[in-house]
Amino acid sequence: MSEKFLEKLIKKVAKLPGLGPRSSRRAVLHLLKDRDKLLLPLIKDMNDVANNIKNCIECGNLDEDDICSICRSPSRNQASICIVETVADLWALERSNVYNGHYHILGGVLSAIDGINPEHLNIISLEKRLVTNKFTEVIIAISATLDGQTTAHYIAERLSKFNIKTTRLAHGVPIGGELDFLDDGTIAQALKARNEL
Amino acid sequence: MSEKFLEKLIKKVAKLPGLGPRSSRRAVLHLLKDRDKLLLPLIKDMNDVANNIKNCIECGNLDEDDICSICRSPSRNQASICIVETVADLWALERSNVYNGHYHILGGVLSAIDGINPEHLNIISLEKRLVTNKFTEVIIAISATLDGQTTAHYIAERLSKFNIKTTRLAHGVPIGGELDFLDDGTIAQALKARNEL
Repeated sequence: MSEKFLEKLIKKVAKLPGLGPRSSRRAVLHLLKDRDKLLLPLIKDMNDVANNIKNCIECGNLDEDDICSICRSPSRNQASICIVETVADLWALERSNVYNGHYHILGGVLSAIDGINPEHLNIISLEKRLVTNKFTEVIIAISATLDGQTTAHYIAERLSKFNIKTTRLAHGVPIGGELDFLDDGTIAQALKARNEL
Repeated sequence: MSEKFLEKLIKKVAKLPGLGPRSSRRAVLHLLKDRDKLLLPLIKDMNDVANNIKNCIECGNLDEDDICSICRSPSRNQASICIVETVADLWALERSNVYNGHYHILGGVLSAIDGINPEHLNIISLEKRLVTNKFTEVIIAISATLDGQTTAHYIAERLSKFNIKTTRLAHGVPIGGELDFLDDGTIAQALKARNEL
C-alpha cells in the first residue's frame, strides 16, 4: 500500500454505503489512471454539489434552489402530499412515474433504539404545510418495517386533527415476486387484502 | 431526481468500477447527509491525492515521492524484481507479506483485441533497470489469463538476453478452493505440477 494521502482517501471511500476496502481500492486506482479525465472532473462535480445543492425549505428535497422544482411546479397535483422517509424514497417514487403530487421528506423514522423522537423528524413543518396549503389527501409512503409502521401510525394520529383523508401504500406480493420467497407477514397481508378478479 | 449538478455527479460516480446507478445514488445521498463531515473532507482528500500522488519513475508504483518507498527501501531484497500488471496487483502481493523484493508495473497485458502492443507496456524501462541494477531473479506475476500468459512468454523471451533467472507464479488449486468448483485447466495444471507429500 502506498503513502498516507492515498490510504486516507481509500479508507474514506471504503466507508461509503455499498463499498468496502476492495471496491474502494479499485475505484481510487481507476480514478488515478487518468487524473485529468477522471479524478479532477469528479472533484469538480463534487464541489458543484457541495456549493449548490441545498434542501428545499418546503419539502426537504435536494435542489439547486431554495424551493425545489417539485414544490414550484404548477403542473403537479396541488391537492396531494406524499410523506416519505428520505430523498432516495422520493426519487424512487418519481422514477415510478405514477405520482404527480407534492412530497414531504420526514428525514427518517421513529426509533427507540437509535433515539429518534418525533422532534427529530420534520413533522412540525408538515403540519404547517397542511395548514397553509389546500391538500385533500396525505399519502404515507413509509417503509413497511416495524419502526416505519409505528411512525406511520404516529403521523396518522397527529394529522387526524386536520380532517384530511390519510392513506398509506398497499401491502402485498411485489410484482414478479414468488410466494415461496416471501415472508409470512407479506403473504398474510396479501391474503387479507385480496381483490376480486 | 433533482437538478443538474446532482445528476451529473451521480452519473459520474455510477461509472466507477463496482458501482452502478443505484449504489451511486446511495453514496451521493449519504455524502449529502452531512456536507461538512462527509462530502467536504472527501473532496479535500481527493484533492490531496490529485496534487500529491505520482507514479514512481523507477517502477511505476503510486507514491508521494518521485521514487516510491519500495524502490527507496534499503531493507528490501535488492536482487529480486517482480513484474506485475497494475498497482492493484503490487498491493495484493504486499498484503500477502511474503515478497520483499522490488517491483515493476507493466501497465497492462498485450492484447490484440484492445490493440495493446509491447510499446504500450513499460518494457523498455524494465530492460534499463535490469542493465543498471544487480537483479538475479525476475519473477513474472501476471494474471493467468490467455493475454496474461502470452505477455509472460513474450517478456520471458525479451529478457532471455540478460541471462537472469526468470520465474513465474505457480498454478494450482487455490487455498480453500474445492475441486468441484475449479475449471479443468486449473485441475490439469495442479495435477501436472503435483508435489510429493
